[in-house]
Amino acid sequence: MDAQEPDFHHATPEGEDRERRICRTCGFIDYVNPKIVAGVVATHADGRVLMCRRAIEPRSGYWTLPAGYMEEGESVEQAALREAREEACASLELDGVLGIYSVPRISQVQIFFRARFAAPDIAAGPESEEVALFEWDRLPLSELAFPSVKWALDDYQAGHGRALPPSMRTQTPDMRPD
Amino acid sequence: MDAQEPDFHHATPEGEDRERRICRTCGFIDYVNPKIVAGVVATHADGRVLMCRRAIEPRSGYWTLPAGYMEEGESVEQAALREAREEACASLELDGVLGIYSVPRISQVQIFFRARFAAPDIAAGPESEEVALFEWDRLPLSELAFPSVKWALDDYQAGHGRALPPSMRTQTPDMRPD
Repeated sequence: MDAQEPDFHHATPEGEDRERRICRTCGFIDYVNPKIVAGVVATHADGRVLMCRRAIEPRSGYWTLPAGYMEEGESVEQAALREAREEACASLELDGVLGIYSVPRISQVQIFFRARFAAPDIAAGPESEEVALFEWDRLPLSELAFPSVKWALDDYQAGHGRALPPSMRTQTPDMRPD
Repeated sequence: MDAQEPDFHHATPEGEDRERRICRTCGFIDYVNPKIVAGVVATHADGRVLMCRRAIEPRSGYWTLPAGYMEEGESVEQAALREAREEACASLELDGVLGIYSVPRISQVQIFFRARFAAPDIAAGPESEEVALFEWDRLPLSELAFPSVKWALDDYQAGHGRALPPSMRTQTPDMRPD
């Protein structure tokens, strides 16, 4: 059996002031909410920072921080801890908000936390080719997956691990890759 | 013509590890992302705080802070400023993140900012019955719309307007109303 596909067109639902995607077949209104990504800059007891080499698109093969889409029924903090567990088999404790980064072009909001290790072990989860701890002067800066990875690393270093007010950043359309 | 309705059932899409809502009619997979609410605790030059009495459900008639769902294609900061403009006709400037509040039961993340007035005038927008500036010792505490309104007011007062690290809070299922 062929997969069914929704047949979306753009129209303004009654009583609203904004166009939404509506399926011609079933009438479903696709309210698109910006997606929340929760992530961490996690440092080991020796000060090195945890990174993951992506095993999935987009930007497969590039280095990123543990981060991913928040799911229903969890808090932002739980989402960040879950992603670190799934992508790097890391058990962490959060230390506060590092930055809130908006990416309007793809309707994404990324919330990054400072974190430290609750247990020392790491291992690549299914979405990571490899996980590693990097010295701060040996970061894989030429192989970063997304601009926000650089922002989070920069913001962490700017605070020297201290609890600064979170950095607010917005990605502009000319910034690539993402 | 009767409105069409999607016919959702719960199933796990191929290659995933989690159940999603899928429409039996058209095959649409309804990835539900937590919704982002952006809001402000905005103080006037005389120190009073801006609040709105809701003209819409839920909690119509109760007092809230300017806040609402983030839309596609904007940053969190733009969403907070837009909501203040729409609900209270207020022109504000943001001063930093006040708190990030998770409400897992309804998959919501609320990001509140400290703000001050860029222009002194306010007026009720279409979603507000009334807008007002309250002295801090005369807040309508018995008529607040949501627990997070109290949190944001408390967190603002705890910082005396200073840029503290944002407060992180999670609403538990027993907290009502919301």
